[in-house]
Amino acid sequence: MFVLGIDPGLSTTGYGLVETSRGVMRAVTAGVIRTDPADQIAHRLAELERDLVGLVDEYQIDEAALETVFVNKNRQSAMSVLRASGVALMVLGRRRIPVTEYTPSQVKASLAGFGGADKQQMQRMVQSRLNLPDLPRPADAADALAIAMCHAQSLRMNRAVERAR
Amino acid sequence: MFVLGIDPGLSTTGYGLVETSRGVMRAVTAGVIRTDPADQIAHRLAELERDLVGLVDEYQIDEAALETVFVNKNRQSAMSVLRASGVALMVLGRRRIPVTEYTPSQVKASLAGFGGADKQQMQRMVQSRLNLPDLPRPADAADALAIAMCHAQSLRMNRAVERAR
Repeated sequence: MFVLGIDPGLSTTGYGLVETSRGVMRAVTAGVIRTDPADQIAHRLAELERDLVGLVDEYQIDEAALETVFVNKNRQSAMSVLRASGVALMVLGRRRIPVTEYTPSQVKASLAGFGGADKQQMQRMVQSRLNLPDLPRPADAADALAIAMCHAQSLRMNRAVERAR
Repeated sequence: MFVLGIDPGLSTTGYGLVETSRGVMRAVTAGVIRTDPADQIAHRLAELERDLVGLVDEYQIDEAALETVFVNKNRQSAMSVLRASGVALMVLGRRRIPVTEYTPSQVKASLAGFGGADKQQMQRMVQSRLNLPDLPRPADAADALAIAMCHAQSLRMNRAVERAR
């Protein structure tokens, strides 16, 4: 099964695709989509959509997961992230790819065992769990892999619970 | 010139298309796009996109204007509106339709002369300025017409300023 993780943003959207098979996960691809801050927001969102469509066209994605921001600290930045996440959700919704949202602390708790793990701890956890030769970079791509892994783990647990019934 | 106004929302997106010709404005079309609250957000955003694409396909739109929300009162609702506005901006950006954002008080000040006008005062101003036989309904469609008129007025003023130079 192919699980896509997305860490949405207007300047940088991280993506990470993980394949799970009999409880083993491997990284298929990961990277970032960047848009030019000098461009108009409408053009940047159109560019983000085009690149995300390219991604879902290239791979047979079964499930997707998105990191959800909550508006608290930086409002202007949260506004951009929410707009980018709207575009990402729409691309997935159009393809009828099931999508689940997780908060950053849910993702951290799922991978590192506690919600307060820092960026480097998360990168190391992703590297070790996916058996990557190097630390996954940039950080947004590592975050996206972590989101995909969090969702894959949650799906596996749900299935185990169903089997147990 | 055709100016499209959009009042974005996840449950209800208002749209209003205004044609301006030699300083005279007329309403071409107005209405709302609704999505089912029982549906998943990704599907609702995909539906919103499909309907907005239908709209920009049907008319030769020269300029667009969007009402921008600011996150303050209801966070959950602001999140939905921002996601919907991301989809709307993306649809316009993809078509390279120039889009300008206005705050609710800018729209009110432009039409009613002061930023504190209430919903009914705005509906009446839209009705009178566009010579409509009835009050424009629903309120989101009237808001969208007001946004389009605000932008048309701003474009006209910018042109007058340029000519004066």
